[in-house]
Amino acid sequence: MFFHTSRLQFESKPARPDAHYARKLQELIGGAWGEMTVTMQYLFQGWNCRMEGKYKDLIMDVATEEIGHVEMLSTMVARLLEGAPSETTAEMVDKDPVLAAVIGGMDPQQAIVSGGGATLSDSNGVPWNGRYIVASGNLMADFRVNVAAEAQGRLQTARLYNMTDDPGVRDMLKFNLARDTVHQNMWLAAIEELQEDGLEGPVVPSALFDEEHQQHAGSIWHLSDGAHGAEGRWANGTAPDGMHEFEYLMKPEALGEKGTAPKPDPLLYATSPENLGMIENAIKKLT
Amino acid sequence: MFFHTSRLQFESKPARPDAHYARKLQELIGGAWGEMTVTMQYLFQGWNCRMEGKYKDLIMDVATEEIGHVEMLSTMVARLLEGAPSETTAEMVDKDPVLAAVIGGMDPQQAIVSGGGATLSDSNGVPWNGRYIVASGNLMADFRVNVAAEAQGRLQTARLYNMTDDPGVRDMLKFNLARDTVHQNMWLAAIEELQEDGLEGPVVPSALFDEEHQQHAGSIWHLSDGAHGAEGRWANGTAPDGMHEFEYLMKPEALGEKGTAPKPDPLLYATSPENLGMIENAIKKLT
Amino acid sequence: MFFHTSRLQFESKPARPDAHYARKLQELIGGAWGEMTVTMQYLFQGWNCRMEGKYKDLIMDVATEEIGHVEMLSTMVARLLEGAPSETTAEMVDKDPVLAAVIGGMDPQQAIVSGGGATLSDSNGVPWNGRYIVASGNLMADFRVNVAAEAQGRLQTARLYNMTDDPGVRDMLKFNLARDTVHQNMWLAAIEELQEDGLEGPVVPSALFDEEHQQHAGSIWHLSDGAHGAEGRWANGTAPDGMHEFEYLMKPEALGEKGTAPKPDPLLYATSPENLGMIENAIKKLT
Amino acid sequence: MFFHTSRLQFESKPARPDAHYARKLQELIGGAWGEMTVTMQYLFQGWNCRMEGKYKDLIMDVATEEIGHVEMLSTMVARLLEGAPSETTAEMVDKDPVLAAVIGGMDPQQAIVSGGGATLSDSNGVPWNGRYIVASGNLMADFRVNVAAEAQGRLQTARLYNMTDDPGVRDMLKFNLARDTVHQNMWLAAIEELQEDGLEGPVVPSALFDEEHQQHAGSIWHLSDGAHGAEGRWANGTAPDGMHEFEYLMKPEALGEKGTAPKPDPLLYATSPENLGMIENAIKKLT
Amino acid sequence: MFFHTSRLQFESKPARPDAHYARKLQELIGGAWGEMTVTMQYLFQGWNCRMEGKYKDLIMDVATEEIGHVEMLSTMVARLLEGAPSETTAEMVDKDPVLAAVIGGMDPQQAIVSGGGATLSDSNGVPWNGRYIVASGNLMADFRVNVAAEAQGRLQTARLYNMTDDPGVRDMLKFNLARDTVHQNMWLAAIEELQEDGLEGPVVPSALFDEEHQQHAGSIWHLSDGAHGAEGRWANGTAPDGMHEFEYLMKPEALGEKGTAPKPDPLLYATSPENLGMIENAIKKLT
Amino acid sequence: MFFHTSRLQFESKPARPDAHYARKLQELIGGAWGEMTVTMQYLFQGWNCRMEGKYKDLIMDVATEEIGHVEMLSTMVARLLEGAPSETTAEMVDKDPVLAAVIGGMDPQQAIVSGGGATLSDSNGVPWNGRYIVASGNLMADFRVNVAAEAQGRLQTARLYNMTDDPGVRDMLKFNLARDTVHQNMWLAAIEELQEDGLEGPVVPSALFDEEHQQHAGSIWHLSDGAHGAEGRWANGTAPDGMHEFEYLMKPEALGEKGTAPKPDPLLYATSPENLGMIENAIKKLT
Repeated sequence: MFFHTSRLQFESKPARPDAHYARKLQELIGGAWGEMTVTMQYLFQGWNCRMEGKYKDLIMDVATEEIGHVEMLSTMVARLLEGAPSETTAEMVDKDPVLAAVIGGMDPQQAIVSGGGATLSDSNGVPWNGRYIVASGNLMADFRVNVAAEAQGRLQTARLYNMTDDPGVRDMLKFNLARDTVHQNMWLAAIEELQEDGLEGPVVPSALFDEEHQQHAGSIWHLSDGAHGAEGRWANGTAPDGMHEFEYLMKPEALGEKGTAPKPDPLLYATSPENLGMIENAIKKLT
Repeated sequence: MFFHTSRLQFESKPARPDAHYARKLQELIGGAWGEMTVTMQYLFQGWNCRMEGKYKDLIMDVATEEIGHVEMLSTMVARLLEGAPSETTAEMVDKDPVLAAVIGGMDPQQAIVSGGGATLSDSNGVPWNGRYIVASGNLMADFRVNVAAEAQGRLQTARLYNMTDDPGVRDMLKFNLARDTVHQNMWLAAIEELQEDGLEGPVVPSALFDEEHQQHAGSIWHLSDGAHGAEGRWANGTAPDGMHEFEYLMKPEALGEKGTAPKPDPLLYATSPENLGMIENAIKKLT
Repeated sequence: MFFHTSRLQFESKPARPDAHYARKLQELIGGAWGEMTVTMQYLFQGWNCRMEGKYKDLIMDVATEEIGHVEMLSTMVARLLEGAPSETTAEMVDKDPVLAAVIGGMDPQQAIVSGGGATLSDSNGVPWNGRYIVASGNLMADFRVNVAAEAQGRLQTARLYNMTDDPGVRDMLKFNLARDTVHQNMWLAAIEELQEDGLEGPVVPSALFDEEHQQHAGSIWHLSDGAHGAEGRWANGTAPDGMHEFEYLMKPEALGEKGTAPKPDPLLYATSPENLGMIENAIKKLT
Repeated sequence: MFFHTSRLQFESKPARPDAHYARKLQELIGGAWGEMTVTMQYLFQGWNCRMEGKYKDLIMDVATEEIGHVEMLSTMVARLLEGAPSETTAEMVDKDPVLAAVIGGMDPQQAIVSGGGATLSDSNGVPWNGRYIVASGNLMADFRVNVAAEAQGRLQTARLYNMTDDPGVRDMLKFNLARDTVHQNMWLAAIEELQEDGLEGPVVPSALFDEEHQQHAGSIWHLSDGAHGAEGRWANGTAPDGMHEFEYLMKPEALGEKGTAPKPDPLLYATSPENLGMIENAIKKLT
Repeated sequence: MFFHTSRLQFESKPARPDAHYARKLQELIGGAWGEMTVTMQYLFQGWNCRMEGKYKDLIMDVATEEIGHVEMLSTMVARLLEGAPSETTAEMVDKDPVLAAVIGGMDPQQAIVSGGGATLSDSNGVPWNGRYIVASGNLMADFRVNVAAEAQGRLQTARLYNMTDDPGVRDMLKFNLARDTVHQNMWLAAIEELQEDGLEGPVVPSALFDEEHQQHAGSIWHLSDGAHGAEGRWANGTAPDGMHEFEYLMKPEALGEKGTAPKPDPLLYATSPENLGMIENAIKKLT
Repeated sequence: MFFHTSRLQFESKPARPDAHYARKLQELIGGAWGEMTVTMQYLFQGWNCRMEGKYKDLIMDVATEEIGHVEMLSTMVARLLEGAPSETTAEMVDKDPVLAAVIGGMDPQQAIVSGGGATLSDSNGVPWNGRYIVASGNLMADFRVNVAAEAQGRLQTARLYNMTDDPGVRDMLKFNLARDTVHQNMWLAAIEELQEDGLEGPVVPSALFDEEHQQHAGSIWHLSDGAHGAEGRWANGTAPDGMHEFEYLMKPEALGEKGTAPKPDPLLYATSPENLGMIENAIKKLT
């Protein structure tokens, strides 16, 4: 169960409204790698965690924080939209190209649908959806996604930081950058700890290694003509899991036979020589 | 530009059809973490790569391989659907509960839409979409997603491996498991190499560390009442990036003021005391 | 079965084209609360209605009208796009900032995909979809959605009314506003009538009141620290259904125990202490 | 900012697992009218509220409660999936039709993707998305949606209640039914209070009544041949807003002229008599 | 503007309910190639048509008919769902495998959401959406899509015909098959007439033939190793448009140089040698 | 299995960057009728083809080419985005309306998400999805879709050709136009050949002609009041399939009875007279 305080996690107000930027910030709210994604991803990971203790408690700590990030960003969007042009006419636009550009670059739904507030969409207005998250029950697999999410999130925040010089907006983004830093570090530390605790190896899941085809578990197939693919550490030597050896196949060949689909079911009307008489019959019956 | 050989990357045929399993395999084709995702993610990362050489060449090698995985799986689905019941009646279902169950558990679109073939959807029939992939231009951020994708992919493959005992299907999955193993190892090795080459640090992007609010770049906020969140290595000491110190805030308080949205624009008709006279006026005008 | 007349329900032509506005009007066509939504919602409610007579006939009257609203709006979009710039060059844009702004703010698909016509999308180009509608079979539940839809629709129309001063566009919107007014009134009247006819109470469905946990059927839980939540009529006294008493819980406590997920299935590879030996075994087998 | 307690809002455990029912419960988590929808709808309404005080505080109270409902339901899904068949073979299915049926009716992603946990999808596996919510800034318009959401939610919960006889599941649903009851009553009370406070009338928004075409603001158009549409109170008399008069138009005629799209832009290649010479020219140029 | 009669276009009732089949029929309602698609595609094509007369009138005739097909199918779904199990328990399922299978194979939303009626989704429960349709303004391009839609629709109807032996359902499908036959023929005839009227050639649009690279306007590139691609009439001779010559390139080579993305913008943090000093600087600043 | 060469199929570089145009080009990458659609459509058709030989080999030739088209376009988008403004401020925008317009008209995700590269979305930023493709197994039905796809694709390319005068971009589009020309011709030729080979007739599928209701297999229903619908060759005479006769029904009447849904299941709480006593009982039980 949750509780809420009306105070924001961090204080910041924009120096002045900026309707274009309000659209861009939507990426951090409802984008595939935005705050809504980490909120819901961590909540579902916590609820799906099969091991009581430090990992689960950490997940729920961070998940709960992230709801507050969606709150901060939504509030910021509303503030950036203050006084955004809501009563404009084609005539005004003709006379004032900057006004024209502002109106052209706004997210129209922030005005028409939300009345000056944020939506649960990305910077192109595409709604956030539940397939952006994963909570597999396997902590290593999920923590790898979490590092990735915080990395993409910090990258996008850094890009957005350079797209404004409003000191209030930058102040909030400095906080967001810092949180993305610590969360990346935190999930990286948790990955190390999972391995030290013997709960997972670097390759996930640590199972079925004896079943997989081991002759194919270390080879990189050279299938594009770029000449430098073999120059990295992935081309030979022991792999990071300490259990496999890398190999770079310079001239790989397909191991399978020609790919074929089975004979069709006549009642599904796939085109095939077997069905050749079908039309003749159909015409015969009709005439 | 691409070339194709009709031979599959790996040979395997199911011992017998299995329409239920054909539905489940769709997860590996069109699921958020399926082969279509890694195919398109790696292709777009390669095309978006800003540095010629080993990294780009590796990405294109693997991307090209992955298209062939979608091919293998789609072929397998068609084979598993051979002879799936296409002509059934309610009467037959009444008499044969196993037949009833098979029909109930099939993906109906594999018959009605694809005529016994695979679709570009997941195991619930939801179509694959382009928001599942990311190609940010930042190799570290993207390789982290790649490790995660291969981890989730291997996890799902391992689960599916246990859901069949068909030797032909298992043979293909043994190959898939092996490829997911080497690809995880490979991206992990590439992450190490990126750091050794000085192209990125563990926290992405390696920029704006001097701008972010450093007092918030190491703290975990204890916002859920689980008692064990402070027991991991993320609670104190130096963070994995070697640049920040961890700290666990046991009693964090909101730093911001009350979150408020600005005064509304009257022409957007948000409810507010300022707009109180609106109804009176409306009625007056009308009467 | 349906019939069509080529005459529009209401006549209006824009005084002059306005490509920006053509984009905004898409919200009323394909937005979540646009005319397509009410069209399909009412049609499916009518077809799903289990009671012949006045309610069903009313639903079908209004549903049939709404198809004509999609027609009016689509025609208006085509007219607003007349002469929209289809042959522009970067050079022209450099010289004419208003042209640049117009092009920047247009819906590119109205030109590239529809050749100067409307699409079945909202003002951000997101396609309309069938989850926007509901036809539950319960008329009270559905009429409540219908009132809501007409309210959101009239609100958006009113906002769009202020965003143009084109007399022709405004003339059409004056008609739309009027229809949204009468449709709101109509569904409100139908809700009253449903209650008078004894078909439903204000709370839907009027069932299982004796099964629900009655001690929790009147209380508002104070879970956010705002101080004024108890000042409304929802904080005590008899509820609108005349059957329940309101109560405001100032210090609510969670009634449940700690939320836990059950022990994991080992073959699903969730992380758990039970699976601790997994890696050791895997390595053993391999080495 | 938010806080979390690990205790669930209400305690209930299923008497025994039920994989079919775990799929159905997804509707209450990630369905268009499920708990995720009310959670996010109320949060965004609160953040977008332009009037401090009782309404905003109430919204945030309830929004915060709803996050806990997603938690309760997700936990219940995990418990219902305990021991769901994860290791099955076609052979086993052949022998055990009930097992076959259970597997056929399960949500495959609850196993393959979530490892025995809930997903953020509905009962057909379609992911929840952000277009399901609205936060318009106009409280009356939004409270009407809120009543509708709680009504559809209670209706679905009541249907699901009849689809199980597990006492633990029913215990939770009795709590959910009660909460949906009080929330419906609460939003109905808030709607009354909005009107008493003079903040909005029954028809939303209470604006532009003097602008709308008043001759069309009271008439129902008889466009379907059902004979009973005029028998309700919507056919004549004063409308619920007290400001308009109802009228039922028995033989309505279209008011507009023939709907036409304007002359096409030649460079968009719409088919039209004006472009007739296009092919001739193309062939001439080529030959 | 539209009118509606309560009478269905064609009469048919199922001999008995069949909940499985009710799910499958959803494909013809809300599938990508279902009746909703042709309804909306034809309506938008009609509204977007730039040439008054026979083509536009035909489009509107057929569009109006198609709305009635959605009506017929939705009514049939409701009838097939009559008496579908709504009150079942795990215990009942254990005892009755056929009941178990029926429940497992049903579309759960037809019960939980629609209360025994159709939804606006396909047979996997994925909602219909507006990107399924196209109305480009170019009649030839659109009529080609229309033929394709009627072909896919008739194919799916034929498959569904074989999946039931209910005489009432088959009666309706016989009507649907016939309508798909005539509509295919009709669009094929309209395509011929467009060419005879000189409005378009077989290749669409009949423009820019003098601009396109003519040396590439007739060649098929042999990029897959299948040996028989050159055996068809597409390999040489005059093409169907009478304006181009076919050619089969047995050993095609890429014409372009190596694909490269331009130098990255440093503030977007793409990985590149130019940004090598970034980390060093970041660390320096911090320490 | 696939191979890749780093060389693009065709060489072209833009004369100068153009961020607006980079957004528009997304339509050809990830639009419903873009290169991604034909790539995946042809690949799945090839894999689902039930007849070895010329048709399958042709499909795979073209499918493999199309992957390279996505590559060409993605590379072009990256080049068009070179130097797109990534560091802008509200102040700069105020001073430079052209800059303002450029920023307003850009796809924000091309910068924030992809760091100056293409996304897998259309020109409105909506992600490509797997429902855009079809691979039915019936070659005639699918080739009809293929002609349509190439026609819509060439139409959109032609429109985009007129929206730029950059010689490098136009050079690429001239190649694309040519490929769309030959591919249209090719599929048209393949359709003729399918008929000549007796594998399908013009109406698809060539089956169940004896089952369909023949009296409805030739008639066009006049349901819209346009007066010219009977003037085309579809109004009488032999249909293109040579098997049916056209007929234009000037005054068609509905053949069915009133459409009705069956009596509701009481436990689904549909509104109906049968459930009238429900509320009374509920109140009685409660009081």
